[in-house]
Amino acid sequence: MAKDSDKIAKLVAGIADGQRRALAQAITLIESTRADHREDADLLLEQILPLSGKSIRIGISGVPGVGKSTFIESFGMHLINKGFRVAVLAIDPSSQRTGGSILGDKTRMEILSRQQTAFIRPSPAGATLGGVARRTREAMLLCEAAGFDVILVETVGVGQSETAVSEMVDMFLLLLLPSGGDELQGIKKGIMELADMVVVNKADGDLAPAANRAAAEYHAALGLMRPSSPNWKPRVKKCSALHDEGIAEIWSAIEEFRTKLWESNEIPDKRVKQAVSWMWSEIKESLVFAFKDKPEIDKALEKVESDVISGKIAPATAARKLLNIFLKA
Amino acid sequence: MAKDSDKIAKLVAGIADGQRRALAQAITLIESTRADHREDADLLLEQILPLSGKSIRIGISGVPGVGKSTFIESFGMHLINKGFRVAVLAIDPSSQRTGGSILGDKTRMEILSRQQTAFIRPSPAGATLGGVARRTREAMLLCEAAGFDVILVETVGVGQSETAVSEMVDMFLLLLLPSGGDELQGIKKGIMELADMVVVNKADGDLAPAANRAAAEYHAALGLMRPSSPNWKPRVKKCSALHDEGIAEIWSAIEEFRTKLWESNEIPDKRVKQAVSWMWSEIKESLVFAFKDKPEIDKALEKVESDVISGKIAPATAARKLLNIFLKA
Repeated sequence: MAKDSDKIAKLVAGIADGQRRALAQAITLIESTRADHREDADLLLEQILPLSGKSIRIGISGVPGVGKSTFIESFGMHLINKGFRVAVLAIDPSSQRTGGSILGDKTRMEILSRQQTAFIRPSPAGATLGGVARRTREAMLLCEAAGFDVILVETVGVGQSETAVSEMVDMFLLLLLPSGGDELQGIKKGIMELADMVVVNKADGDLAPAANRAAAEYHAALGLMRPSSPNWKPRVKKCSALHDEGIAEIWSAIEEFRTKLWESNEIPDKRVKQAVSWMWSEIKESLVFAFKDKPEIDKALEKVESDVISGKIAPATAARKLLNIFLKA
Repeated sequence: MAKDSDKIAKLVAGIADGQRRALAQAITLIESTRADHREDADLLLEQILPLSGKSIRIGISGVPGVGKSTFIESFGMHLINKGFRVAVLAIDPSSQRTGGSILGDKTRMEILSRQQTAFIRPSPAGATLGGVARRTREAMLLCEAAGFDVILVETVGVGQSETAVSEMVDMFLLLLLPSGGDELQGIKKGIMELADMVVVNKADGDLAPAANRAAAEYHAALGLMRPSSPNWKPRVKKCSALHDEGIAEIWSAIEEFRTKLWESNEIPDKRVKQAVSWMWSEIKESLVFAFKDKPEIDKALEKVESDVISGKIAPATAARKLLNIFLKA
């Protein structure tokens, strides 16, 4: 135990000193599912928590092919050239299904990954969405404690992970292609409405006119949705990440967002709400886990569920049956 | 116990016979929170379940002022004149806050409420959303067992209740005003995307041109969203409920929806999925209830939550602390 707290103290010191190696080790620790590691992780989090909170947390999403890596490379380098330290975290619950993490490809963000003031961390392979999102939230706090000014949380724009990401960041960016409305078909319902900023990428060459049309369409569509902040109306920006065009304007808009929402106290409020709802979602997930884990439930569940499916018992009755089993066990 | 099962048998017979009085009593029974009533309700549901499932279940939402009552009155009378039996259920979690159920006003749906083949039931006063939604699902089954052909589940377009409603119906209708995009500001995020049909009401007199413009705008906006069914693209219809105009066209489109989605097996599939996820949401809600209900949790929660708010402990650590208390207690 004494040894462990020594180890944690060293990690904390390394993180506070901005050492990427200590940061990477700490993230590995919080990603571990071993019970003793989890205790160490709690100790670690407790100590770095006071050092966290100073970055701007940005979620970035978009369907495969929209150019997320190119965008993050270009955007990240822009920030690094301005003297900021940039961390990139990825949430990709599909990594196991598709056979590779979205950040697993070594050729991605080649320039950015070589910078001393950049830190790139893929999501753990094979983790569930809930697990990934949880660990990513904690990794974000660790990056902040290590002095990173901008945290980019990357996710693929095709699933539930966007909601999870939007619930842990200050601002949510949605990257879209210049192909206009049709392309939104590939995006999951509701994601457009999470966006604080829509960025039409690949606005260059032949695609420039299409990008203009798409930007106008998205602008109109966003106008039909209720903005989630009283102090910020979602914007539509165009860029060519490949040619580093439009990137500075995007950063200016993000800075404007940050200033407005800090001054109106919206970001701090949002973070407190996010923390409380994060606690509750952990509690709920763990309760369901404990429920399913009971051998008595495991035994009864299949039969009850198939009775619900075949219409033999009402869902509420089924739930009550199982709960009685759980609470008695 | 024997007496209770006699009572239930009588209720079931009355419902199967289409008696509105028996139906109303049964709904009162399932709305009761008393444990013994709950047991009776389970018995009742078990018996009526084989009789249920034959209606088309339609959710209807829209902000206050859009003319929901007028629409339901006009639409309901259209169906009754065609020989259908129509049940109207309401979900209004705000009823206590605003001091009156959305169906509490006796002057609402005056003509419809006097029909022998109509059944109108407001949501129980002061119930929570989860509770209301649960009981409304069960009331829907009871109405079906009583031979109602069309079930309309009404809700106000300003809150979470829309998601709950969309998860219990076959088709979701969103009523909108002719005032165009601006008005969507009052509608909660994501609701537009739940709609299988958008109906622009008050498309009459001076407002007719505005209604045309609004319909075109909504049509464009819906085109940007991914339809939830491969066999149905959300439609935009105009009507004047006050003058009974456009109502027949709306019903034709609903019939087309029903035919297509029954033939493709989508509605039966959707209902099975809805039943299973309903069971799970009951389980989750009850687990959280059992969690909060533990005196040990009640004692510890406030302190832990305030530590999360002040940033003293990480949310995941807080969750683990509370869970340990719960599982030990």
